[in-house]
Amino acid sequence: MADRRFETLKYEVDEGVATITLNRPEKLNAFNMRMMKDLLAAFDATDADDAVKAVIVTGAGRGFCAGADLSSGAETFNYDLQGADAMAARQPDGVQRDGGGLVSLRIFDSLKPVIAAVNGPAVGVGVTMQLPMDIRLASTEARFGLVFARRGLNPEAASSWFLPRLVGPQTALEWCYTGRVFSAQEAHERGLVRSLHAPDELLPAASALAREIAENTAPVSIAITRQLIWRMAGASHPMEAHRADSRGIQVRGKMADAREGVTSFLEKRPPAFPDRVSTDLPDIWEHWSAPSFK
Amino acid sequence: MADRRFETLKYEVDEGVATITLNRPEKLNAFNMRMMKDLLAAFDATDADDAVKAVIVTGAGRGFCAGADLSSGAETFNYDLQGADAMAARQPDGVQRDGGGLVSLRIFDSLKPVIAAVNGPAVGVGVTMQLPMDIRLASTEARFGLVFARRGLNPEAASSWFLPRLVGPQTALEWCYTGRVFSAQEAHERGLVRSLHAPDELLPAASALAREIAENTAPVSIAITRQLIWRMAGASHPMEAHRADSRGIQVRGKMADAREGVTSFLEKRPPAFPDRVSTDLPDIWEHWSAPSFK
Amino acid sequence: MADRRFETLKYEVDEGVATITLNRPEKLNAFNMRMMKDLLAAFDATDADDAVKAVIVTGAGRGFCAGADLSSGAETFNYDLQGADAMAARQPDGVQRDGGGLVSLRIFDSLKPVIAAVNGPAVGVGVTMQLPMDIRLASTEARFGLVFARRGLNPEAASSWFLPRLVGPQTALEWCYTGRVFSAQEAHERGLVRSLHAPDELLPAASALAREIAENTAPVSIAITRQLIWRMAGASHPMEAHRADSRGIQVRGKMADAREGVTSFLEKRPPAFPDRVSTDLPDIWEHWSAPSFK
Repeated sequence: MADRRFETLKYEVDEGVATITLNRPEKLNAFNMRMMKDLLAAFDATDADDAVKAVIVTGAGRGFCAGADLSSGAETFNYDLQGADAMAARQPDGVQRDGGGLVSLRIFDSLKPVIAAVNGPAVGVGVTMQLPMDIRLASTEARFGLVFARRGLNPEAASSWFLPRLVGPQTALEWCYTGRVFSAQEAHERGLVRSLHAPDELLPAASALAREIAENTAPVSIAITRQLIWRMAGASHPMEAHRADSRGIQVRGKMADAREGVTSFLEKRPPAFPDRVSTDLPDIWEHWSAPSFK
Repeated sequence: MADRRFETLKYEVDEGVATITLNRPEKLNAFNMRMMKDLLAAFDATDADDAVKAVIVTGAGRGFCAGADLSSGAETFNYDLQGADAMAARQPDGVQRDGGGLVSLRIFDSLKPVIAAVNGPAVGVGVTMQLPMDIRLASTEARFGLVFARRGLNPEAASSWFLPRLVGPQTALEWCYTGRVFSAQEAHERGLVRSLHAPDELLPAASALAREIAENTAPVSIAITRQLIWRMAGASHPMEAHRADSRGIQVRGKMADAREGVTSFLEKRPPAFPDRVSTDLPDIWEHWSAPSFK
Repeated sequence: MADRRFETLKYEVDEGVATITLNRPEKLNAFNMRMMKDLLAAFDATDADDAVKAVIVTGAGRGFCAGADLSSGAETFNYDLQGADAMAARQPDGVQRDGGGLVSLRIFDSLKPVIAAVNGPAVGVGVTMQLPMDIRLASTEARFGLVFARRGLNPEAASSWFLPRLVGPQTALEWCYTGRVFSAQEAHERGLVRSLHAPDELLPAASALAREIAENTAPVSIAITRQLIWRMAGASHPMEAHRADSRGIQVRGKMADAREGVTSFLEKRPPAFPDRVSTDLPDIWEHWSAPSFK
């Protein structure tokens, strides 16, 4: 698959790395229903394309994402008044699924590593959509704000599950309680961001990390690794991990990738892994199932 | 509601902030059955009073809380010998619920943010009662000790659930294994404490943080945020957060607070949120239920 | 019980501390089926011996553990070709339990504190076997590599449960995605390792910590503490901790250890705890059960 076209995103694939760029720069890439649907489709595309071994998400222009587009004013979050334009599908029982959450859960299920390159201000869903991404690099110009309580709302996009796991409950609560905008430096010190970069060096650093993954590791192994770590981050007992990773080792240990991985290591040469995510990803999850919304 | 009177606590409300002061200074505020009951009642009071938008807990005199009052000597923890004075109610099956745990679970359910201002030594339940508080500020004179194994006991007050989430299993185990008393500096470096302050500046710093919350955010949003983050810190999958926060956004998005939050932001003025915790807190938890002791 | 003999381990008990030394130095202590069985037996021995109050695990020679022994070459992980030598028992349904996972789960259930003294390179299962150990000290010469994806495999030994709890999902994913070997310094900065030591000072530091535990605390209290913190690290709600720790305080509060703990404290003398893990460990877990592999 080649590059794809989306109304609110740029989508480019180069040397094994897909770059998804939030692309409403005149609105600081504010999130709307179209962007939600585009993001769902973009992650379907990265999962389906074996040429994509890692994904970078960044923003066009000077911002990363300014949060929900407030151009509807005071009634922005009153879904009853939005009709067909509601940010997400309404369930048969009348409950409206949050659009940010649909994006977060889609990223949670991604089969490819996801690196956020936070180039500028990120507010509201502009922060919470980053949390299910695996690794966050930030420009020194980035800023962050979990502003929900200042708008009379609450943290969404399943952020209450992700945030305490990433920075601990103490920092998660302080950021959500105050709703203040904080610096990239603070985000780094508290563990939300993995590393800080000069603005010009942000995308090169994200690309270098993405290529380090793409060039050295087996994509099927990476997909399994991603599922294991995110799913087990919420599991009650290490036995749940043992069930799944035992199956992983047993099945993968006799596949071509494992032979190539050991052989290339013993021969001190770069590996060339033959197995493909689209066709060779084993199911190691018979004892585990994802919950539904209901 | 105005200030309340408790035998073992001072309870004062000022400018939206309730300050609960452990008040047995001649005993370094040692914890006894009376203090347990007073703390349960104090958090009932803060939850019920819409004038309270944040809570500070601190200690009178030079200590925060010296742990269980040991004036009964060797039989302090033998509940069979304490009759009606047992620290907590005995269940019909003969199991005695731990008094520190009753306090921790009450604080876990608090609808208001809770800031610990740790002014001096905190030992045993004097530490474990802090863990369900949201944010810990400490005096440079504070010290901490999870001394249970040195007394032939075990960590209580549900601390084994909170501590690994706050500082990771490695530090949690080291502190509980050695039972040693450690410095405020170490508590800060390992992530238990959010910030260190000169003794004179501790309460002003706690007050400033409490007022930052009280002045900028919607109390109903804060109550929902608190439930979301603490409950989801133990949830198995982000879908559990998505179920609750979707309902939160849907219900809150059409309430007066959301209109005021967006409007005041667009008008670049401070918000004046009309919704009240006592009357306007929605139930977003139909898919989640708190477990009982049995 | 005195010292024990194992083919792949040294096992020594001295002054309350058992030291388990991975002992295939000519292979950088590479892990094989024999070592797996020896480790299971060694932790059975430390649990059964009341003279053992803490356990240190280290490696002989210049390495800690180089990971799975690759001397079978490309088919190392193809269990179908290994017959009776398979690394772990096959289940009736044909699923093969991972050998590293059997070790991790055995260490998870240890009744004694476990301190890793990481003296040199640790790769693959050489890292993942450390994760259920409680506290990791490392030589400045140590290195770490979660290399699974470079071998066409996936993280095993239930590491996907442990690693995000120890270092957060962001670091866990980066280390497993790149599969690169990283320094002791990085392991320390990201929180995997508790402290760094000059090579000559590593074992003395581990011994000092082990003796600090052995000399000051009640072994039965330590065993309960270990179960509480590891089991509750995965629990959904603090009520689960309250159920178990209430029982712990009630039962232990009337035992000899609690009388000695309080009395020795009031008399300002070192404690001499009489209760023994082999005979006096109470069951406080009637409301909790460990899952089985099936």
